[in-house]
Amino acid sequence: MSDTTAGLLSQIAGTGRDEVRGGFSRPVFSAAERELLEWAREQCTRRGLDAEVDGNGVLWAWWNPAGHSLVDAVVTGSHLDSVPGGGAFDGPLGVASALRAVDLLRERDVVPARPLAVAVFPEEEGSRFGIACLGSRLLTGALPAERALALRDPDGTTFADAARRAGLSPDRIGRDDAALARIGAFVELHVEQGRGLIDLGAPVAVASSMIGHGRWRITVRGQGNHAGTTLLADRRDPVVAAAQVVLVVRAVAAEHPDTRATVGRFQPVPGGTNVIASRVDLWLDVRHPVDAVTAQVVEEIARRAADAVAGEGCTVELHEESSSPTVAFDAALRDRVSGALPGAPLLATGAGHDAGILAERVPSAMLFVRNPTGISHSPEEHVEDDDAERGSVALADVLQSLVG
Amino acid sequence: MSDTTAGLLSQIAGTGRDEVRGGFSRPVFSAAERELLEWAREQCTRRGLDAEVDGNGVLWAWWNPAGHSLVDAVVTGSHLDSVPGGGAFDGPLGVASALRAVDLLRERDVVPARPLAVAVFPEEEGSRFGIACLGSRLLTGALPAERALALRDPDGTTFADAARRAGLSPDRIGRDDAALARIGAFVELHVEQGRGLIDLGAPVAVASSMIGHGRWRITVRGQGNHAGTTLLADRRDPVVAAAQVVLVVRAVAAEHPDTRATVGRFQPVPGGTNVIASRVDLWLDVRHPVDAVTAQVVEEIARRAADAVAGEGCTVELHEESSSPTVAFDAALRDRVSGALPGAPLLATGAGHDAGILAERVPSAMLFVRNPTGISHSPEEHVEDDDAERGSVALADVLQSLVG
Repeated sequence: MSDTTAGLLSQIAGTGRDEVRGGFSRPVFSAAERELLEWAREQCTRRGLDAEVDGNGVLWAWWNPAGHSLVDAVVTGSHLDSVPGGGAFDGPLGVASALRAVDLLRERDVVPARPLAVAVFPEEEGSRFGIACLGSRLLTGALPAERALALRDPDGTTFADAARRAGLSPDRIGRDDAALARIGAFVELHVEQGRGLIDLGAPVAVASSMIGHGRWRITVRGQGNHAGTTLLADRRDPVVAAAQVVLVVRAVAAEHPDTRATVGRFQPVPGGTNVIASRVDLWLDVRHPVDAVTAQVVEEIARRAADAVAGEGCTVELHEESSSPTVAFDAALRDRVSGALPGAPLLATGAGHDAGILAERVPSAMLFVRNPTGISHSPEEHVEDDDAERGSVALADVLQSLVG
Repeated sequence: MSDTTAGLLSQIAGTGRDEVRGGFSRPVFSAAERELLEWAREQCTRRGLDAEVDGNGVLWAWWNPAGHSLVDAVVTGSHLDSVPGGGAFDGPLGVASALRAVDLLRERDVVPARPLAVAVFPEEEGSRFGIACLGSRLLTGALPAERALALRDPDGTTFADAARRAGLSPDRIGRDDAALARIGAFVELHVEQGRGLIDLGAPVAVASSMIGHGRWRITVRGQGNHAGTTLLADRRDPVVAAAQVVLVVRAVAAEHPDTRATVGRFQPVPGGTNVIASRVDLWLDVRHPVDAVTAQVVEEIARRAADAVAGEGCTVELHEESSSPTVAFDAALRDRVSGALPGAPLLATGAGHDAGILAERVPSAMLFVRNPTGISHSPEEHVEDDDAERGSVALADVLQSLVG
C-alpha cells in the first residue's frame, strides 16, 4: 500500500490507449472504462474500504472504522472516463490521489471520526452521451432519469441499453436522496486544465468558483446533392453555411471578454467526399463567469448564425443539451480547505466537474494540481510526479482536518 | 423474365436502407452490397448468362450463344455500391437496365454476333476507401494494386483485409490486361446527376464528355486543448481555421466559372464537444471541364488557405488522393450510339464513372436517364418508371446495333 500517486496511475497507463488520436479514449461503459472501475474497486477493497456501485453506477468505497452511521461523511473522488484522445490525468488523478490520501492518513495513524468515502462518478465528460457530469446530475436529480435513459451515443445506443449491458438496472437510475444524505462534504482533486498554477508558481490550488457553461447542438440544413454535377449557383451547401456559423461563434465570443466558445464536433450528413451534404450537426460549448453573459452570447450566436446561413439558402437551429450556472463553492468548506493548506492560492476554473453539480445539494470543494503544459483534453495534458504527490499530500491534509 | 426495369429495382429496394441518413448506404464489401452483387449474379444466371467474379471483384456475365472467343465483346453495366445515404438509382439503374436490355434483345430474337456481357464494378463511389472507380482503376492499372491494398476505411480496415473477407485474394488484385482485351466496347447507362435532361425535355442522353475531377485530403493542424479553460487569445483552433478553408474553397471556385468545388467531409480530431480539436481532416472535391483550370483552382485554394489559417496559428496541407482528367468519349463509338438513338441529345457530365476510367483503354460510351429532381447522392434522386423503361429500351437499341 505504499505506491505513490504516480505509481498508482502507472498501473492504468496501458488501459484505453487511443492509437489513432493519441492519449486515451475511455468512454463510459466501454471495456477500458469498466476495467478502470474494476481496478479502482479492487484498490479500495485492498485498502479495507467497503466498496459498492449504486444504481447510478457511482462507486462508493467506505472507510468507517468506528462503525458510525453513514451520515455527514467526507467523500473524495473524481471520474475515470475520458474525452476521445484525452490525457492521463483528467479524472484518474483525483481517484489515484484519493487512494493515496487514504494510505497517507493510515501512515499518519488517523482514525476517521466521520465516515470517509472514495467515490468514482460515471460519464463526467459527457463524451459518449453528450451530457457532462451525467452521474452526478442523475444522483442530484439535476437531470431526470427519463431524459438520461433516452440519450443516444453516436452509434445510436441508448444510455438505458448501455447501462444495462454494464450491469445497471435502468429502473434504479435517477435521483438518489438517500445517497446524497450521507455526504457531509465532497472534495474533488483534479488536474488543472489551464495555466493558472503555472503563472502562480504553485503546485496546488483551492477552487473559488466554477464558471457556468452550456452545450448546444446546432443543426444547419441545406440540400444534399452531387458534388460534380451541381453548379455553385444551384447549391444550398450546409457545410459552407456551418463554416460561417463557426466563424460567427468565434466573432461573437471575441466581442464579450472572458467568453470561451468552442465548436469541437462538426458532422456533415451524409459525409461523403463527392456529396454536397444535406445537413451539418455541430456542437457549441459556451462558458462565462456571468450566466447572463452566457445567455446573451448564445442568443447573439443564434441570431447572427441565422443571418449568415440564409445567404446559402440554409436554415439553422440551436437546441440546448445542457446548461450549468456558475457555481461559487461553499464558503465555509472552502475556508476549512484553505485553512488546511496554508499558502495554497484560490483559483476559478472554466471546466465543469462533478463537484460543481454536487455543490447544488451538498457542501463541495475542489483542489487543482499544476499542469505544466496548461493543455487539457489532449495527450499533452501532464502532471509531474512530484506535483501529483504534493496534490495527494494536500488532499490528505484536507481530509484529515475534516475527519479528525 | 418479363420484369420491367422498375420491377427489377423494386427487388432490391429493401437492401441497405439507411435509417439514419435516409436513402441507402451500400458501401463496397458491406453485407448490403454483397447481397446486391449476389442478386445481380443470380439474375444473370437466370438469364442463362455465364457469371464469374474476377480477381478485382468485378462481376462479368457472358451471353455468348455462338461460342465466339471472348474478344471484341460488347460490355454493359455499372455499379451497386452507394455513397452514404445515397439514392436508389446511382449504379443499380445501370445494372437493372443491362438485365432488362438482355431481356428485350431476347424478346426481339436478337442472337448476338459478338459476345455480350453484363458487368458490375466494385467501389465506384469511393465512399469506403476514398478512391472513386476503384474497381475499374485496378482493372486498367490506373491505380497500382499496392496502393489500393493499403487504403484504409474510416474504421482502419485495409482494402486488402476487406477484400479478403469478401472472398477475394489480394494477390489477384490489380491490372488485368487479359480481362480488358476481351472488351470491344463498353456502354454504361446511368441516372443523370444534374438537370440537363430536365432542361432538354428528353428522357435519355448520350454522353459527350466526362468532366475531370480530383480529390484532396486537407489537414489543418492546431493545438488541442480544453474548451472551458483556454482563453480565446491562447487558442490555435483548427476548427476555426478549417471553417476559413471551407470559405476559401467556395470563394476560389466562384472566381473560376464552371468550377465545382465541394467539402463534404469534415472531421475534427478528437471530435469532443468540450475539446478544442488538435486537427481537422477535410476532403476537397474539385471538377472543371479544363484540367488546367482544376489544377489552378487547387493551387489557389492551397495558397489562400495557408494565409487564412495562419491567422489562427494553424497550418494546412493538401494531399491528392485521386485525379482524373476530362474524358472525351470515343468519337466513333459515340456516333454509333447516337445513330441507334435518333433524337437523343449529347450531354457532358460532371460526375465520374467507371466508363470514364475504362475509356482510357477501351472504346467507352454512356447513356444518361432523366432525373426529375436533378438531385443525386441523396435520397431525393429519382427516376420515373417510364423513363427507366425508356432507358432500358435505348440501351437495348444500342446493344442491338453493336452486336447485330
